[in-house]
Amino acid sequence: MELFLLSNSRNHGHGFLEHVLDEVSDFIGPGGHLAFVPFALKDHDAYTKVVAEALAPRGITVTGVHATADPLRAVAEAEVLFIGGGNSFRLLKTLQRTGLREVVRERVLAGELRYMGSSAGTNMACPTLRTSNDMPIAEPDSFEALGLVPFQINPHYLDPDPSSTHMGETRQQRLEEFLEDNDVPVLGLREGTWLRVSGSTARLGGAKAARLFTRGAEPRELAPGSDVPELLTMTPHFDS
Amino acid sequence: MELFLLSNSRNHGHGFLEHVLDEVSDFIGPGGHLAFVPFALKDHDAYTKVVAEALAPRGITVTGVHATADPLRAVAEAEVLFIGGGNSFRLLKTLQRTGLREVVRERVLAGELRYMGSSAGTNMACPTLRTSNDMPIAEPDSFEALGLVPFQINPHYLDPDPSSTHMGETRQQRLEEFLEDNDVPVLGLREGTWLRVSGSTARLGGAKAARLFTRGAEPRELAPGSDVPELLTMTPHFDS
Repeated sequence: MELFLLSNSRNHGHGFLEHVLDEVSDFIGPGGHLAFVPFALKDHDAYTKVVAEALAPRGITVTGVHATADPLRAVAEAEVLFIGGGNSFRLLKTLQRTGLREVVRERVLAGELRYMGSSAGTNMACPTLRTSNDMPIAEPDSFEALGLVPFQINPHYLDPDPSSTHMGETRQQRLEEFLEDNDVPVLGLREGTWLRVSGSTARLGGAKAARLFTRGAEPRELAPGSDVPELLTMTPHFDS
Repeated sequence: MELFLLSNSRNHGHGFLEHVLDEVSDFIGPGGHLAFVPFALKDHDAYTKVVAEALAPRGITVTGVHATADPLRAVAEAEVLFIGGGNSFRLLKTLQRTGLREVVRERVLAGELRYMGSSAGTNMACPTLRTSNDMPIAEPDSFEALGLVPFQINPHYLDPDPSSTHMGETRQQRLEEFLEDNDVPVLGLREGTWLRVSGSTARLGGAKAARLFTRGAEPRELAPGSDVPELLTMTPHFDS
């Protein structure tokens, strides 16, 4: 199984995927072809164009699965899939209702399809939607996602701003509330970072540390570039 | 029907409900009794104690419905109900599974029960959970909430921070995504503000303007203290 799970697709001051273009190019393979799932944003054509333009300089071609006669077949025949960010509730709802959730899951777990996700697309790789940052603008059939890894990821992980006067929960408070109701580790991926899974290995990428939240323990910083294979053998326990 | 819907219960630099204590005291009535629903936070006893201590100086007594032999009966016999903030997914799940959702809804709509909510408790007064800011840490049976008003509210409404380098969506972007999928007005209530509904009247409270989002129009600022009865006669159209 080959996964490339990005916190975000657009880093501050950079173009789409620009901060990670070498790694993306390596993952897809130069001159390769990418099947793109644009369902997290409303305008599928415009979104696909952004991805195609970002990858064209590396000779990578892109097809939006929404524009094919049969998206399920497009995914069944693809070698590399990219699920882009946007709204994770809208995205999961679409993956469930189109049947793409099952097809993607089976082929990725079988090692037949390499999976790249950013933001909401990274949320999809987890067992559930429960550590999404997004607004629940659409109602999926359930929170069950692709379950490619046995832990949760929080993309766009954000450290508290000590100067803030806003009284909404900090990200850490939200994740601590998640752990009150679910005994499942959460990997907080700061912007500009990613997790690369290859078979039984898992390695953090990008210049910033990740932050790991587990029930009953203080959050732990994981250094940039760390190997974290132990995450892949965790057993998640969600509440009912 | 009498509703008192607060953006937040704790304003920056103030104690619990301190910024709005006169209005709360007026709504409950001096020497009155409050039935409190603490299900949005994990520690129900501690949460109830915070509310009781905040209201004791006004001679108001508080009972946490979780601590009664029969929460449904406690709500059926109450005159004023307060649903406190916390996590709105956990809260809605509990309201649905305990049957409180139906009892509260019926009695409030019949004018038998005055309803006060803050943050997640204000989300509950809307048709659905779809404009919550919270992390989906728990999975409710559906996103259907109490539907006491025919529009959505976004509590803790937050203006964009022009100095931010974080790439997550701003609140306005999230609400615009909501409107892409739902033709339902959203009232953004900034911290320290509230909406007071009494029969067919509705008035904004607090020192800041509210921000109204409707499909196909620029967001509109509503001045502090405005009468907004037109919100009560809107017809919401959610996607499937």
